[in-house]
Amino acid sequence: MSDRPSVWAPLVECVELFVGGERHLMDRDERGWWTAAIDLAPGTDYGFVLDDGSPIPGPRSPWQPDGVNGLSRTLHHEAFDWTDAGFTAPALADAVIYEMHVGTFTPDGTFDSAIDRLADLADLGITHLELMPVAEFSGDRGWGYDGVHLYAPHHAYGGPDALKRLVDAAHGRGLAVLLDVVYNHLGPEGNHLRSYGPYFTSKYATPWGDAVNFDDAGSHEVRRFVVENALMWMRDYHFDGLRLDAVHAIFDQSAVHILEEMAIATRELAAEVGRRLVLTAESDLNDPRLTRPIEEGGYGLDAVWADDVHHALHVALTGEEAGYYADFSDADALARAISDPFMYAGHYSAVRDRLHGRPPGDLPGDHFVVALQNHDQVGNRALGDRLAHLVSPGRVRIGAALLLTMPYVPLILAGAEWAASSPFRYFTGHASLELARAVSEGRREEFSGFGWEPADVPDPQNPDTFEVSKLNWSERRREPYAGVLSWYRDLLALRAATPALRDADRSAVEVTHDAEEGWILVRRGPISMAANLGAEPVTVQVDGVRRLAWPPELQTDAGRVHLPPDAVIVLERPG
Amino acid sequence: MSDRPSVWAPLVECVELFVGGERHLMDRDERGWWTAAIDLAPGTDYGFVLDDGSPIPGPRSPWQPDGVNGLSRTLHHEAFDWTDAGFTAPALADAVIYEMHVGTFTPDGTFDSAIDRLADLADLGITHLELMPVAEFSGDRGWGYDGVHLYAPHHAYGGPDALKRLVDAAHGRGLAVLLDVVYNHLGPEGNHLRSYGPYFTSKYATPWGDAVNFDDAGSHEVRRFVVENALMWMRDYHFDGLRLDAVHAIFDQSAVHILEEMAIATRELAAEVGRRLVLTAESDLNDPRLTRPIEEGGYGLDAVWADDVHHALHVALTGEEAGYYADFSDADALARAISDPFMYAGHYSAVRDRLHGRPPGDLPGDHFVVALQNHDQVGNRALGDRLAHLVSPGRVRIGAALLLTMPYVPLILAGAEWAASSPFRYFTGHASLELARAVSEGRREEFSGFGWEPADVPDPQNPDTFEVSKLNWSERRREPYAGVLSWYRDLLALRAATPALRDADRSAVEVTHDAEEGWILVRRGPISMAANLGAEPVTVQVDGVRRLAWPPELQTDAGRVHLPPDAVIVLERPG
Repeated sequence: MSDRPSVWAPLVECVELFVGGERHLMDRDERGWWTAAIDLAPGTDYGFVLDDGSPIPGPRSPWQPDGVNGLSRTLHHEAFDWTDAGFTAPALADAVIYEMHVGTFTPDGTFDSAIDRLADLADLGITHLELMPVAEFSGDRGWGYDGVHLYAPHHAYGGPDALKRLVDAAHGRGLAVLLDVVYNHLGPEGNHLRSYGPYFTSKYATPWGDAVNFDDAGSHEVRRFVVENALMWMRDYHFDGLRLDAVHAIFDQSAVHILEEMAIATRELAAEVGRRLVLTAESDLNDPRLTRPIEEGGYGLDAVWADDVHHALHVALTGEEAGYYADFSDADALARAISDPFMYAGHYSAVRDRLHGRPPGDLPGDHFVVALQNHDQVGNRALGDRLAHLVSPGRVRIGAALLLTMPYVPLILAGAEWAASSPFRYFTGHASLELARAVSEGRREEFSGFGWEPADVPDPQNPDTFEVSKLNWSERRREPYAGVLSWYRDLLALRAATPALRDADRSAVEVTHDAEEGWILVRRGPISMAANLGAEPVTVQVDGVRRLAWPPELQTDAGRVHLPPDAVIVLERPG
Repeated sequence: MSDRPSVWAPLVECVELFVGGERHLMDRDERGWWTAAIDLAPGTDYGFVLDDGSPIPGPRSPWQPDGVNGLSRTLHHEAFDWTDAGFTAPALADAVIYEMHVGTFTPDGTFDSAIDRLADLADLGITHLELMPVAEFSGDRGWGYDGVHLYAPHHAYGGPDALKRLVDAAHGRGLAVLLDVVYNHLGPEGNHLRSYGPYFTSKYATPWGDAVNFDDAGSHEVRRFVVENALMWMRDYHFDGLRLDAVHAIFDQSAVHILEEMAIATRELAAEVGRRLVLTAESDLNDPRLTRPIEEGGYGLDAVWADDVHHALHVALTGEEAGYYADFSDADALARAISDPFMYAGHYSAVRDRLHGRPPGDLPGDHFVVALQNHDQVGNRALGDRLAHLVSPGRVRIGAALLLTMPYVPLILAGAEWAASSPFRYFTGHASLELARAVSEGRREEFSGFGWEPADVPDPQNPDTFEVSKLNWSERRREPYAGVLSWYRDLLALRAATPALRDADRSAVEVTHDAEEGWILVRRGPISMAANLGAEPVTVQVDGVRRLAWPPELQTDAGRVHLPPDAVIVLERPG
């Protein structure tokens, strides 16, 4: 929003600026942009009146202090006093990403209260924070994927200045910050974009209805709206990169795909501001094109989430094989996943009932973000139960050791580092009673399909569902949490100290395993880790000096280690 | 269709083979394929009974002697006695494609009667015939884009053996043959595929309804159905390649795009049979990815239709600027189009109201097929009037001279070579009265939008609309037709004799023009052509010896030529 308010509304007959209780006529140019002949000071509340309707918030509102349907408030990004000059994010090959939901990260659930925990994260060995979406969504609580004001940090988290304080403080601690952004759909409540112009198209169907219009009439302005939004977070809020939500639901047949356009614009901004900026994406496509360089016909993103690796890990650790996990029940799946991010690379997937994916070729490991669990895999369980609530302490540690010795970029969901007792449930705070009821009922119905009694499925709209999902930071000082936290800290320290563990060359990883006995041995340079996921004790040949072990009393003996079920050892060969 | 009939019908409870008035139970395998324990001799009529319904034709019917809803007939491709051993098609860089509609090409409108005209085409200098779609569509006449039995050559054209005779005879004359195939939708009448399985998906919308399912559940079999169809034409009917209809309406988010899969399969077949096979495509995307090599992130097609070049030519020759021609009214459009196949390469298109296209980079000219008119541009006019019905004989010749000196693969619509008097109208022969009425009314409505009186718009369902579109071959011996024919023949002979005119290097073309005066000069190696599209006589500096001129009395004088309006001269610099 420049001083002189302007707005794109190509199909509207008359647009007026609403400010201070008055309407001001706006002038339309030939491209469908309307401009008011009036300057607005920072902090001024405004809206637009379309064709004599009621005032509604602006498409690029930078701040919605009163929620999704309130007036917008102007903002001068230049006014913030940044203290992070000189900070540059580490490369993804060296990154350990920490995914957090602002609302449940601390008791207060605000940007400012999150600042108090940055020291803990730096101490743990985290390099990158990743905030789940913060763009204004309906209500005071929610995961954030229902955002409708893509330019406005959520009012309940503290709004624009508080977000800047968080990013600035993170940089002060040496932590980079990524932001999760949603360009595949808008939330069901407070979406005023439809009134302004052709932001959506019926050419493609998404799980949330009409797709965002990236290639139909008017798409040039929609693309600009989205690309400039991406750039705004990195330029005006100093984010070090983005995580693009569900890009498989972004449909674009243009000769320049919107993801490629975004990658080019990001590259240009990085050159301009002299910082490292990255684009990562959630993708269900198993398509190497997303991160292949533009010069080689790719879209030029920096990394994609590789959920296949999660699925293989999850099945190996939990034995669960329901739903989409059925595709990963093969005994060799885990061993393959350690160096192959796409388990489905042109193969038939029974769950999808079609061929899926394409081999990643020589794309390096730092093009893939991998987690033991992210918000989806926890939150999309009926009770939001974490991995640590499903398996033994040994298997929690095996999972962490596997994750942090894989050649990928590891992502840790906030709380996983101490096996937090809090679940991470699906919660919403929609104001519309009709929508609220639909969400509550939909959730119950979804899980009744998996044999759940309706009464046992937490109601997303119930404030308690949000409250119980908050992390309890005090528990991490006592057992069994403190032990898990040490395990993570030690693994991350080892990773930081060992270049071979940050080597993105996937072919440098050696995996040996015995599917029948259930043990697996992973070697990367001087580091090796052996774990027993089977039901019986096993003896595995290893070399090197014990660095970490669970149970702690494990010892090697003449190049062998005896591993009880759920045991794991990490060794280092002297250099 | 192998001897033992089998069919994919994954969602059907019971499938029976219907043959000789009897039903035979079929066995289902775990992939949803049903097989009958009975051999069928070639020439046997059969159908399938799904869940106790009426017999319907098979999805891969090789022959529908009684139309789209009749029984299918088995066929042994091996039985045909080919005489074309050793024939290999010329490369696209050397090609001159001749697009023909079998039904209007000769009075009989059959494959066999077309054979009688092959000598004329070879004499003219054609290298490639391109048949408009021949796959079985409803009725006895139609353009062919409403095909519903993709494996069956149309019964009214003579069926499978007659098609083989045509291809074999063409090869005998040294002519390659391409086939137009439609994989973006099926026709509205006689489409039984929906009954068999998930051949369509509501994930994407096309102008014809649900899209063909290339990436949703079940798509692995739909893709196989389509790819094997493409291969069948080239293997069993000896086609030298395909023209894929409207690939912009093929939606596929798979990591391996169906076009790429088809290109790979075609490459493999070419290696196997030892012939040159090409895939060309109609595309409205202006996307270089389609013909970029697979190794460079492209789909690996051989060529795409470059309609932008047609539009620029058409506007320059006719002055028409209605509809999508509005995007090509720029005075420099023609001059640019001569070496740049995508006029829209990331630019804003007013007609599309969005950015369109991407620069073709260094893709050579033989990746682009260009026409003065193809079936669409003639047939989608209310009266199906050809270019020659709109402009002077001089401008007809200017068009031909431009087309044949451009660095692209020229395509000539049957009859254009003598400025045929016959229109090429939109005609259909649907049997369903409801559909027939909808088509007739739809056509009238479409053109009422352009100011046409309903009574003046020929009715597609009226048999006369088809009859008047037939070529009158006898007229080509008299003027003014014979003169145009000579002009084309001479130009094609010059192109064949001059390597520089078949050089696919687009940067080797020199264009000089004066937009205000309206003249244009094109140089390619020793050849140059100058034409006056303006309203006043002009004098243009040229060099070389006159090879062709219109009016015929044109002479050069001391390196200059005086060109009246609509005059054109082609010169050759001695080597």
